[in-house]
Order: sequence, then C-alpha cells, then structure tokens
Amino acid sequence: MEERLRQQLSFILELDKEKNILRQTHLSGHGRRENDAEHAWHMAIMAYLLREYANEAVDIGKVMLMCLIHDVVEIEAGDTYAYDAAGLATQKEREEAAKVKLYSMLPADQAAELMALFDEFEAWETPESRFAHAMDNLQPLLLNDSNDGGDWREHGVSAEQVYGRQRKTALGSERLFQLADGLLQKHIEKGNLKA
Amino acid sequence: MEERLRQQLSFILELDKEKNILRQTHLSGHGRRENDAEHAWHMAIMAYLLREYANEAVDIGKVMLMCLIHDVVEIEAGDTYAYDAAGLATQKEREEAAKVKLYSMLPADQAAELMALFDEFEAWETPESRFAHAMDNLQPLLLNDSNDGGDWREHGVSAEQVYGRQRKTALGSERLFQLADGLLQKHIEKGNLKA
Repeated sequence: MEERLRQQLSFILELDKEKNILRQTHLSGHGRRENDAEHAWHMAIMAYLLREYANEAVDIGKVMLMCLIHDVVEIEAGDTYAYDAAGLATQKEREEAAKVKLYSMLPADQAAELMALFDEFEAWETPESRFAHAMDNLQPLLLNDSNDGGDWREHGVSAEQVYGRQRKTALGSERLFQLADGLLQKHIEKGNLKA
Repeated sequence: MEERLRQQLSFILELDKEKNILRQTHLSGHGRRENDAEHAWHMAIMAYLLREYANEAVDIGKVMLMCLIHDVVEIEAGDTYAYDAAGLATQKEREEAAKVKLYSMLPADQAAELMALFDEFEAWETPESRFAHAMDNLQPLLLNDSNDGGDWREHGVSAEQVYGRQRKTALGSERLFQLADGLLQKHIEKGNLKA
C-alpha cells in the first residue's frame, strides 16, 4: 500500500478513540455521559440547520469540518470541563502537544491543513470559528436544559461561570445567545444555577 | 420564540436519540458496540480525508452532510444489520415512514431539503451518494479489521455476504474497493470470514 494511504488509515483508526473520551454533559432523557465524537456530530448538524442565525455569512462546509475535528486533540489531552479551573490552566499546552502528535500521523499536506483549521477554531478570529464556538456552547446547553440543569447541579456551577462561557456565543450569533440567555435565566430562577 | 426556531430546536433534541442506536460493529481495541452518531461522525471525517480517492469529483460538503444524516431514520426505524435478511426485507418501508415523521419536525424548507438529501443517498445515482456509501462500507470494515474480524465471526458471516455489500464500494471509489478487497482476502485466509 502507498505510504500516503497508509498514513491516512492510521489516523482514521486513531480517531476511533475519540468515542471513548467522556464529557460532563449527559444525554437527554437523563441518559449516560456523552462522548466527544457524539458531541462533534451533533454540533456539525446543528451548525448546518442553524446557519441562518450566524452574525456573518459563513462557509458552512468549513464550519462543519471545524466542528467535527475540534475535539480530536482530546484523544491525547483528555476532556477539560468548562468550569475546571486547574484543568483550564494547562489545557492550551496539553492540547498543543496533542495537536502536533495526532495530526502528524497524516500526510504533511493534510496535517498542516487540519492543524491550521484547529488553530483557526481556537483563535475566534473568523466568522466560521465564532459560529462553531456558538455550537460548542449551545449543544451541551440544550442537553442540560432538557435534563433540568442536572449537569450544573452536579458540579455546583454558578450563573457567573456559565455566563462567562455562554456570553461569547453572541460573537457567533446574537440570536442564539438570546436563546441561551433565556434558558439560563430560567435555570437561575429554578435554582439549578447558583445566582 | 418564533415557530421556526422552535421547530429546529425540537428536531435537534430529537437527534440526540441517535446516540442510543447501537450497531453490530465494535469499537477498535475490542471495545463496546458503536452507535449511529459515532459512526456518522467517523464517516464524515473519513470522507473529507479520503476524497482524493473518489472515482468522480464530489461536492465534499454535501458528502459530509449526507454522511452525518444518513442514519437519522434509525431513531425511529432502528438499525438493520447488513446481513439480517428478515430485517432487510422491511427496511425500506420502515425507513420511509421514519424519514417523513422525523424530518417533518423541521420547518418545511429544511424538511424537504434533508429528505431529498437522504433520498439521494439511498438512490446511489450521484457521485456524492456513491462516495458516501463507500464510507458507510469502509468505516465498519476498518474497525472490524482492527478487531481481527470479530464482528463477522460473532454472526457467522460469509465472504459472499460481505462482498455483496463491499463490492459496491467500487462504484464510489475503485481504490478504496481494492483496499477493502485486500482486507477481505486476508480475513478469508485467516478463517474470520466463511469462504
């Protein structure tokens, strides 16, 4: 087999491990914990269906691919919970090392392309990255809302912590931040989020 | 909230159920059974990485979306194992009913668009649908190969059955069918597939 295809297949098999990286979010219906692959799949379809709410025109194929790969680094670096201060302090460094290690399995052109796409996601500087981040915020919010805020109650998360993250959804979509804001206010009133 | 967004969010939450539809394929490393959402995520990234092997030029964004949604109907219709003759006899009818029921949750324009995309996938008539099917065949083959053919041994599947399905990969990608063929020959020799 030619080396190029062999490299592509090795990376593809490595990707399989993302299905074992668990998040803190639970599936709807008070289900089990979600994994990164499921989360990314859900985000990519959401991006397509909700693209009319993006603040700026986006290349939706690029947004979808960004959603699909945005957590690949967690195969090496693990999932960092959005409100885990200690984990967040080392997240960038761990994920940078993981990025190089994992994507370097691919042929050089594809490695460079996907590393650049991940960097673009992380930088929040393009319409595509801001809309993909809006999906990354909204997707677990919708699941957690469907489960009456159980993920926040389990971790004793405060409204301030959640707003610190969710407010940035407005950079990608004002309308979807309005939606998120309405949901958060409801959960503050219900006591699911500490005021 | 406007009716359009409410419909989109209802569908998005319904999609979550696809994470509970189990396939017969096991994750690499002799892992647990894979679910439809993970399978679709894996296929979509594979399509992007392997698009250079498509027989014909493809709109890769369309292929990826097709991969992401191709099993949504299984939320209602359940997974039909590729070598389950009784299930296959009723699959088309069950999936047609599921398609209408599920996609009709969306605003009419999006419902029509995604039903058409699913129909296109099923019809095997466009380059995009043929390449998406190649991914649908290759993805579980790679996992099963990594697990020494365990999924075939568990079900006593014959080479003839597997070739009946995998041969159609050549319609989307001659090169990837060559790859599949090489893997299948190896597993016949090892006795993992009944000759």
